[in-house]
Amino acid sequence: MERRNFLKASALAAMTTALPMNLLAQSSKSKSPAGSGKMKLTFRTYDLQLRHVFTIANSSRTTTPVVLTEIEYDGITGYGEASMPPYLGETQASVIEFLKKVNLEQFASPFELEDILAYVDKITENNTAAKASIDIALHDLVGKIMGQPWHKIWGLNKALAPSTTFTIGIDTPEVVKQKTREDAPKYNILKVKLGRPGDKEMIEAIRSVTDKPIAVDANQGWTDKHYALDMIYWLQEKGIVMVEQPMSKHRLDDTAWVTERSPLPIFADESFQRLTDVAKLKGAFTGVNIKLMKCTGMREAWKILNMARALNMKVMIGCMTETSCAISAASQISPAVDFADLDGNLLISNDIYKGTTVEKGVLMLSDLPGIGIKKV
Amino acid sequence: MERRNFLKASALAAMTTALPMNLLAQSSKSKSPAGSGKMKLTFRTYDLQLRHVFTIANSSRTTTPVVLTEIEYDGITGYGEASMPPYLGETQASVIEFLKKVNLEQFASPFELEDILAYVDKITENNTAAKASIDIALHDLVGKIMGQPWHKIWGLNKALAPSTTFTIGIDTPEVVKQKTREDAPKYNILKVKLGRPGDKEMIEAIRSVTDKPIAVDANQGWTDKHYALDMIYWLQEKGIVMVEQPMSKHRLDDTAWVTERSPLPIFADESFQRLTDVAKLKGAFTGVNIKLMKCTGMREAWKILNMARALNMKVMIGCMTETSCAISAASQISPAVDFADLDGNLLISNDIYKGTTVEKGVLMLSDLPGIGIKKV
Repeated sequence: MERRNFLKASALAAMTTALPMNLLAQSSKSKSPAGSGKMKLTFRTYDLQLRHVFTIANSSRTTTPVVLTEIEYDGITGYGEASMPPYLGETQASVIEFLKKVNLEQFASPFELEDILAYVDKITENNTAAKASIDIALHDLVGKIMGQPWHKIWGLNKALAPSTTFTIGIDTPEVVKQKTREDAPKYNILKVKLGRPGDKEMIEAIRSVTDKPIAVDANQGWTDKHYALDMIYWLQEKGIVMVEQPMSKHRLDDTAWVTERSPLPIFADESFQRLTDVAKLKGAFTGVNIKLMKCTGMREAWKILNMARALNMKVMIGCMTETSCAISAASQISPAVDFADLDGNLLISNDIYKGTTVEKGVLMLSDLPGIGIKKV
Repeated sequence: MERRNFLKASALAAMTTALPMNLLAQSSKSKSPAGSGKMKLTFRTYDLQLRHVFTIANSSRTTTPVVLTEIEYDGITGYGEASMPPYLGETQASVIEFLKKVNLEQFASPFELEDILAYVDKITENNTAAKASIDIALHDLVGKIMGQPWHKIWGLNKALAPSTTFTIGIDTPEVVKQKTREDAPKYNILKVKLGRPGDKEMIEAIRSVTDKPIAVDANQGWTDKHYALDMIYWLQEKGIVMVEQPMSKHRLDDTAWVTERSPLPIFADESFQRLTDVAKLKGAFTGVNIKLMKCTGMREAWKILNMARALNMKVMIGCMTETSCAISAASQISPAVDFADLDGNLLISNDIYKGTTVEKGVLMLSDLPGIGIKKV
């Protein structure tokens, strides 16, 4: 099927302007017979302002670029989002370029999720965040048509939604202590990104303030398997409850060696992207960290969850820096996971949606249909 | 949680009486606070009358016992069914005994499918048909509440539903020819159960009447791997398109040897029951035959489908002799499978539901919500 250029030339100049809203609409010249609904995709760029400088093993930043999508059908609008942290290779321009290629008008109904998302997935090889922005908007739309939120459609009980981890950013010991004093009382489990010199100092700083459980993301930072295992044993003694990606994604055998001996569950993050990766990681990791922006969205996330469970693997749901749109979408699966790391919306100051919230550290899913959000 | 005896003693005598309807209700003394809905499970036995004597490799019969379930919630009723062909070890009595243990009143909503079905699965180790009768009724109920059939909720396009195979029963060559003359014009793909002396004679008899594609179920009947492979090559020359279970489920290595060399896709039937089996069969079989009565129902069937796809395996959906209740439930997944073998309702003369039908050999899913059936 031929793809048309859905952008008016005049709209191109608006692409990089974040605010005010400049909805870039697909052609409104529907080829559908009179009376039958067609899906209409629109999208715009938006820059998330971070409350604090965000530091991980290899970089620091103060903003995260996203693209917000909307799919309208029969008067109902579904919301979606693509978040592009720089290390994943997507940009607002690459997402816009992808979305311009998406022709949803060829499908009769948003309920044809399997066909639509298979088509979207085949447009390019990568662009997983762009694909997720379509997937999320379609799920929001279909859930709204059915009048139910996706955790219910998936058969999950929102009363079982877990606490979310909250990330304590890497900084000097004094700053880390100060942040921990502020944030630890509000959460039931903290998260720390390690994998750099000073790892133990970070943990000691937090432990001098709180004894709450901690999840550790090593971000591939440990280069020797014996060192990694020693660190994990040390972390266990300090009340750490799980470790993400202790070693490079290129060192699966070493990781398997560590996982086999580890007293803590080891989760794949950089090693894991999509459904077809799950079986390959069985044995090397205890579980996988599902991120909508990496696995193309909610539909594949649900399949990953079920496949991992069938392989007796653990599951966590993670996120990027995102608005409450993508966070609420991800949270729909959270009643079924072992760990939730869904603090991305808590780290920004210009969220434009309200959906899943955190109360006393626990994810509180709304009863709104679809992904459970409304604009604020 | 204590399980109560939900059967009134006086109802016990009615258990083996198939008609007229004797609904065996759970206690109607709800412990719920006023105004909140509770699920109410009822069930009754029913004997399916087969249109023809049904012969497979090891047995013949003229009836199939089933148990019909209903789950009522907030004025909406979901229909379910357990079918018990004798070789699977369940009886009407064992299903009734199981269903008496099921207490759905402890759950606040039928949407809590994951928790409810995990609870049901843990009641006993086996009883997969009894479990399926709960699963199907819950899916029908939840789909009706959402106002959508499950193929749509699952994101499948019913226009992609395949043809169903139709079984030509084993008999003398003349009878087989006569049956083929009658049935072949109505279907696009036939099915033959082999695995006994005279296999080639059966195929030759059918081929003397029609050149339509044929699916073969060997029912573990071939004992030598070289013989099995020779048969498969011979079958391929005769226009057979797939083979189920060529060898004993206890001979996985021999089966893998056959599959590796087979020009036709090889499907696991007796070797396959549930979600946790899928990964073990990768390599030994090309695909799996999902049957609701063996895998505990629609929820696990959907998980199996997605797991098999992720492992690059093929999928077929099969059935027992069943009413249009269980057949329509199974057909909800059919737009996503490689082969559908859903002729169980076509083989009986006393169906009490209308749902998925067969037109020009193709499965036609209804637009009714849930599993898409109504009582006739």
